[in-house]
Amino acid sequence: SEEETCLGQESRAMDAKSNDTCLLLMICQHVSIKTIIPLSLSSQPLSSLKSDEAASGPKQGPTFQDGQRRVDYVLTYHVQKPQSVRRKTSHFGDYRILRILRRSLSMMKGRDMPPPKEDPEVAAHKHRLDYHEDDKRFRQTEFEDNLREMGLELEKDEGNKIPGIGFLKIHAPWNVLCREAEFMKLKMPTKKVCNVVERINLFIRKVTAPLHPKVEPNRAQNVKHLSHPFSREKQHLKFDLLKMTFTGITSLLGNGVYTAAYPLHDILYEEWASYSVFYKYQPIGLIRKYFGEKIGLYFAWLGVYTQMLIPASIVGAIVFLYGCATVDNDIPSMEICDPRNNITMCPLCDRACSYWELKTACGTARASHLFDNPATVFFSIFMALWAAMFMEHWKRRQMRLNYIWDLTGFEEEEVSLCPYATACLLLYVCSYFSLDYVLITLFQDKKVKLTCTDRAPAYMMGLFTMLFMVGVTFAVVFGVILYRISIRAALHMSSNPTARSNIRATVKGTAAVINLVIIIIMDEIYGALARWLTLLEVPKTDKSFEERLIIKTFVLKFANAFSPIVYLAFFRGRMVGRPGDYVYVIGSYRMEECAHAGCLMELCIQLCITMLGKQLIQNNLFEIAIPKIKKLIRRRKSDMDSQQQEDYNMTLQRHEKDHFLGPFVGLSPEYMEMIIQFGMVTLFVASFPLAPLFALLNNIIEIRLDAKKFVTEVRRPIAARAKDIGIWYNLLRGLSKVAVIVNAFVISFTSDFIPRLVYQYMYSPDGSMHGFVNHTMSYFNVSDFQPGTAPLQPMHLGYEVQICRYKDYRETPWSNTPYDLSKEFWAILACRLAFVVVFQNVVMLMSDFVDWLIPDIPKDISLQIHKEKILMVELFMKEEEGKKLLRDNHANQSPLQPRSRPASHTPSN
Amino acid sequence: SEEETCLGQESRAMDAKSNDTCLLLMICQHVSIKTIIPLSLSSQPLSSLKSDEAASGPKQGPTFQDGQRRVDYVLTYHVQKPQSVRRKTSHFGDYRILRILRRSLSMMKGRDMPPPKEDPEVAAHKHRLDYHEDDKRFRQTEFEDNLREMGLELEKDEGNKIPGIGFLKIHAPWNVLCREAEFMKLKMPTKKVCNVVERINLFIRKVTAPLHPKVEPNRAQNVKHLSHPFSREKQHLKFDLLKMTFTGITSLLGNGVYTAAYPLHDILYEEWASYSVFYKYQPIGLIRKYFGEKIGLYFAWLGVYTQMLIPASIVGAIVFLYGCATVDNDIPSMEICDPRNNITMCPLCDRACSYWELKTACGTARASHLFDNPATVFFSIFMALWAAMFMEHWKRRQMRLNYIWDLTGFEEEEVSLCPYATACLLLYVCSYFSLDYVLITLFQDKKVKLTCTDRAPAYMMGLFTMLFMVGVTFAVVFGVILYRISIRAALHMSSNPTARSNIRATVKGTAAVINLVIIIIMDEIYGALARWLTLLEVPKTDKSFEERLIIKTFVLKFANAFSPIVYLAFFRGRMVGRPGDYVYVIGSYRMEECAHAGCLMELCIQLCITMLGKQLIQNNLFEIAIPKIKKLIRRRKSDMDSQQQEDYNMTLQRHEKDHFLGPFVGLSPEYMEMIIQFGMVTLFVASFPLAPLFALLNNIIEIRLDAKKFVTEVRRPIAARAKDIGIWYNLLRGLSKVAVIVNAFVISFTSDFIPRLVYQYMYSPDGSMHGFVNHTMSYFNVSDFQPGTAPLQPMHLGYEVQICRYKDYRETPWSNTPYDLSKEFWAILACRLAFVVVFQNVVMLMSDFVDWLIPDIPKDISLQIHKEKILMVELFMKEEEGKKLLRDNHANQSPLQPRSRPASHTPSN
Repeated sequence: SEEETCLGQESRAMDAKSNDTCLLLMICQHVSIKTIIPLSLSSQPLSSLKSDEAASGPKQGPTFQDGQRRVDYVLTYHVQKPQSVRRKTSHFGDYRILRILRRSLSMMKGRDMPPPKEDPEVAAHKHRLDYHEDDKRFRQTEFEDNLREMGLELEKDEGNKIPGIGFLKIHAPWNVLCREAEFMKLKMPTKKVCNVVERINLFIRKVTAPLHPKVEPNRAQNVKHLSHPFSREKQHLKFDLLKMTFTGITSLLGNGVYTAAYPLHDILYEEWASYSVFYKYQPIGLIRKYFGEKIGLYFAWLGVYTQMLIPASIVGAIVFLYGCATVDNDIPSMEICDPRNNITMCPLCDRACSYWELKTACGTARASHLFDNPATVFFSIFMALWAAMFMEHWKRRQMRLNYIWDLTGFEEEEVSLCPYATACLLLYVCSYFSLDYVLITLFQDKKVKLTCTDRAPAYMMGLFTMLFMVGVTFAVVFGVILYRISIRAALHMSSNPTARSNIRATVKGTAAVINLVIIIIMDEIYGALARWLTLLEVPKTDKSFEERLIIKTFVLKFANAFSPIVYLAFFRGRMVGRPGDYVYVIGSYRMEECAHAGCLMELCIQLCITMLGKQLIQNNLFEIAIPKIKKLIRRRKSDMDSQQQEDYNMTLQRHEKDHFLGPFVGLSPEYMEMIIQFGMVTLFVASFPLAPLFALLNNIIEIRLDAKKFVTEVRRPIAARAKDIGIWYNLLRGLSKVAVIVNAFVISFTSDFIPRLVYQYMYSPDGSMHGFVNHTMSYFNVSDFQPGTAPLQPMHLGYEVQICRYKDYRETPWSNTPYDLSKEFWAILACRLAFVVVFQNVVMLMSDFVDWLIPDIPKDISLQIHKEKILMVELFMKEEEGKKLLRDNHANQSPLQPRSRPASHTPSN
Repeated sequence: SEEETCLGQESRAMDAKSNDTCLLLMICQHVSIKTIIPLSLSSQPLSSLKSDEAASGPKQGPTFQDGQRRVDYVLTYHVQKPQSVRRKTSHFGDYRILRILRRSLSMMKGRDMPPPKEDPEVAAHKHRLDYHEDDKRFRQTEFEDNLREMGLELEKDEGNKIPGIGFLKIHAPWNVLCREAEFMKLKMPTKKVCNVVERINLFIRKVTAPLHPKVEPNRAQNVKHLSHPFSREKQHLKFDLLKMTFTGITSLLGNGVYTAAYPLHDILYEEWASYSVFYKYQPIGLIRKYFGEKIGLYFAWLGVYTQMLIPASIVGAIVFLYGCATVDNDIPSMEICDPRNNITMCPLCDRACSYWELKTACGTARASHLFDNPATVFFSIFMALWAAMFMEHWKRRQMRLNYIWDLTGFEEEEVSLCPYATACLLLYVCSYFSLDYVLITLFQDKKVKLTCTDRAPAYMMGLFTMLFMVGVTFAVVFGVILYRISIRAALHMSSNPTARSNIRATVKGTAAVINLVIIIIMDEIYGALARWLTLLEVPKTDKSFEERLIIKTFVLKFANAFSPIVYLAFFRGRMVGRPGDYVYVIGSYRMEECAHAGCLMELCIQLCITMLGKQLIQNNLFEIAIPKIKKLIRRRKSDMDSQQQEDYNMTLQRHEKDHFLGPFVGLSPEYMEMIIQFGMVTLFVASFPLAPLFALLNNIIEIRLDAKKFVTEVRRPIAARAKDIGIWYNLLRGLSKVAVIVNAFVISFTSDFIPRLVYQYMYSPDGSMHGFVNHTMSYFNVSDFQPGTAPLQPMHLGYEVQICRYKDYRETPWSNTPYDLSKEFWAILACRLAFVVVFQNVVMLMSDFVDWLIPDIPKDISLQIHKEKILMVELFMKEEEGKKLLRDNHANQSPLQPRSRPASHTPSN
């Protein structure tokens, strides 16, 4: 059961953050560590940035028993029973400690195990066969020795409040951190460059002051430090040089310019993770310091996105209001509503339905105008440019953050999963499906390195499963359609008048609920499926793992979320056939028709429901309720009643409390949610101009909700560095490209925009819209009904109907080719397609132009970078001069100089 | 006249290489230097790469009088008369010397001139007012002092063969080069990493051995050196470290792994700049060493492009052959040629022409099939993907070259033109238009920095001039059309039977010649115009200057080259009207019609003529003949007869001979020519599948021609570093995007592909193509001719014509709406547009997929870079250890250590 816990935890960790997953797994395997949870909401002061040497005053946070050495990480283990490991993170130390752990591990692997044992498969196999207790302890000792060898200092503490658990406290001395920093090329603040306090900025800052969070370092953020790759050796030289030239770097390091006196979590809690500050900017600098760059970038991105939604919402609202204002002047809907235009429509279903009068569709027609008016076309173009602008804006913001956070030179290190990949896969697959030995034997004879032929089946399987699942999604949509058709037909048939009057409401209501439930269920299934498919592919690095997983998840979830909408926008009401020749599915069900004024209205409603419903459910149910429930369950498990629990909680230390929080499951779900929303906002914006507004309202809540969750609901994630938002940027870019073509199709095919224009300029006798409604409808001779499909109550309207009308462009019954598609149909189709071609190319051109116009790097940043480079060269030269001086002195005094410099026979010297 | 020479030379230099332009101008101004020509085809050995210290044996190339110090640059000046400056370049030294010159200049500017004099405008003004001779000599001395101050060594030589000219030889000592190298972060080879000689590679190399040029360094290229930013100080430490660890770096540097024993130009001349080696790869490494990275990249790009054209040509040829093979089975052309289908066509012009029989168009129809068959659609898709593949391939090649040439860390330095910009502009504009004082007064009150409002008029002017010129281009095309129409009408009218029989040939011939002449003339005008517009904009940096110039030139030249083709493809024959209602331009000229089988054939011919004609003329006339003529003229100027000349030439030294060569005018014309060709190859490939083959044949010549030109015809260009091909890449990318949509339109609108498909699947009674020809033609009742337009000889065919046919989709004369566009017209139009939408999006998707599939950095290179990084860290650590050792020793022996390191109170240490 011990291994299972390890793997159980691992599977969650893998789900969340494939980074380090395999490594952690190996640690689990070798040292029997249960979980690695960084300490969240810690009493960890910001002074963790200080060097040990420079920190003055009483040490804050937990220390070793000598009260001096700060505890950087804590590994916990079970003294007798299954063990658990904890790690406590500090902003400055955690990258490096992770690296040390990693190296320690690899050293161990390279040394203590005999070659046949070293094979991961065999090791894994062995692992499944249960380790002996002493073997475990041997490995543990070895591991600790390795840590000590790396220069870390350890302290054991086995007599604490939680019985049976020993704590291994780890302290990383300054020099060890420095050595690691050299490898990481971490940047250290070394010098003030300039203090940009221009007057205008000051004014703007005063005006926007209430929007900024009240955090101390806000001021300090404006002071940018010249930095270059940190080097332990250079540090000394630099001290010497800088002492003479600039204000002392030691005091800067010692006092810590970023330092605030009070613990971080209070600020974050009050000034960020609270609904009451929804109108304020986020304290991105602090977020980054507490959670690391990766999460910092997520919140920065979310902030930029939300900010950019503001203008989009405003314009969208104006477009909607324009629709509202002009609804009374809209000639087509006036004509529909005019009772004098006595137009008899053909029945909407076979037998049970009868003829109906067009004026009953008056309400729908008027409502449609709200979303289907010329302003919508403008808004589509606007939103396409908005998307391009948003991408550019984010690129610039990212660049700026990269500069401020000193990530410009940082390169993401890809952790190769390759040597461990198969073992990892095995263990994971096994634990996931409990197929203990099946797959092990399958992979056992394959050695560590997988070839293309090994991978091909997994790739093919992935591809076909994806295609199949997308097919399933569409099948589900079709199923819901069938459900709607059949239920409606059944209800129409029923003689119960109450049932018949509620037909529409009942059908729509149940169908929408079914749809939503299916989407939510499928979402969960698809998440698991994507993970499984990615594991089968055995990606080489953690980054590749994450990217593949994201792409798969995205495709599936996207198809799931958008298939009903795509159906409504492009297929509904297009496969209906015509009176006398309807299209029937599964025997005798006629396909659904749209309401008279097109399907745009229904598309609007669907979008509205999806955006509100999905977001509300996801936000409230999944993001708030479920973690709370999980927490409760976890507490319940610990077999104590609530009073005891309370008391017990009081005595617990921070890291002990964190044990009861949920694990951090990565940023993918957050990004995924937002990207699907971005899809809604951009893809079908032509049909629903209020989408940006809805998204904005949701996001304002979303930011604080995510903040709350990260700060209080889940364990503090391991800080990870990242330069950009990675694959998500590409997905956003792809979406905004697809959006152009989708909007082109929505405008030209779903809305009535093109038919109106064509009528006005090609067919209208007086150039006005009068007669448009009549023009869009063809004639049907009721004697042409197929046998058994004519209405049962032909006299429903009170008069005998000879000719009924239906919405289509077809020849009249009295023409040579009755009911054939008419010339108007083809002319309008040509115009629609021409519009698509023109719209797509013009908007794409404009987007590219915006892209080209806005430079990727903000001008001030590029200037700063240039200035820094010059300063760096100066610094370098001075340093080199200093070194030369040192060596010259040395050479004069000692014969120990390793080599004379190559002789120069240039006559000048 | 002296200043004018300076400026005249300058204008050419600016044309070519805006880089350093203003700087050079300033040098001209201050030191009265006439020209700066690097020595070409020099006796410059490859050992220029060697350090001075390490070079053993007798010095090659010109030296100082001591026979030791190598002459790196030569500045020549007139002892009494106008002076000239020469600079001789070595691969290793020239960047730095340029920098030194630059800095020397800026120092001079900052020191010797009083503030009011320092204003460039005033200086420029003063310059125009003629300097005094002594002032000049004073500046010259000052300049030389500055050079000496920078560490350069000078030697004057005034008694040489060319009377009145003094030579100032400059030698850059090793330590000066080193210092500059530090600034430049030049990379020095320091260590072998690995020698990749896999067996398969060896085999491939054996097979392709004849394709490789016979150059010594070919073998050495496979040895990659670990390199990191060159540092003078580190060099010593590294020597020490490496001596112990690896094979001695000093010997590596000393022996020069790249060194070949014989002078470079012979290899380049024999193995590159010769038509006899047309089938071989280019010795890119040598080209780069001789000409610098920028020109190296151009030839590498040209090589990749030519190589990529091979598969395209093969597929294109196959497509063409497919057309040839299937021409006899093509039902539509069979129907046209069949004399039994007695179809009477309406006359092609008013009055003079009469009815004609369709079977006379048999030849054209059969020829059209060669280019208009389903394989063309496939080929268009293929070429779109080919373009994407080409871009990817080039990106990878560029990356590989960047790695091999150690440019990965190199950042292009943008030389700000800003402070000098206005002065520069003034001088240039003045000398160009001889408007001496007009513009000076215009700019005089504006100080150095230009604001947005200053720039706005120039931008607006640029924009409008561009638009106007593009308009002019189209007007010219229209003019040629009018010429054709009117001449043809005139010839038709003439009663001379010989004239009438030669009508077609005469009209086409003269029109084509006029077109070509106009294109060539306009090209020259546009080049000058673009340069002038860019100067007016006063760009801030040299890079921006170059980019703006290129974009402007590109737009104008592109419009010029493509407007006739665009007219043929999309407009010709579409504005004709119909019998009885023709469209007339300027009174009574009917618009041109296409031949029966569409305009595709004419488009083909035009493309063929343009590609062959333009390339032949450009290649032979401009690139070979004109430089030769110029050279001749330049020699003629020196007032000697040919025998004297011969003798004189024998006595001249290399750099003296180079004086008679043409100046290097930059790479822009070469790139421009190639990019226009790329446009021809990709944009209209749907209509002319042989285009890639023609391009390939041209390029095989082009490479060697350019090589010959660069090696023998123009002065050796100043080596310039570049990481990529810059703006040209963007232009190529843009072209390949535009190509997709253009091809979509060519296939759907210019070719008969869609009408055939539509006929086959919608109208054909038996699903075959039989009856297609009949279907494409409408009926015309000859009684409906407008008065005065009916043919004068209605009985030309021997029978009376009641109904004639014309190619269009219109209603019959006996329908309700005679001659209206028919339903078929709209249906086919809709299908055509649908094809455009589908084609564009599918091909774009596929291109993006190709883009995504092929990684930008070749795998082996990214692995190598990763390996190098690790090695670098190792090296760094060792070095730091060595330094520490040194310092520790030092500390033990001397009390002089500048500062004790900050006390570490970590208990572990």
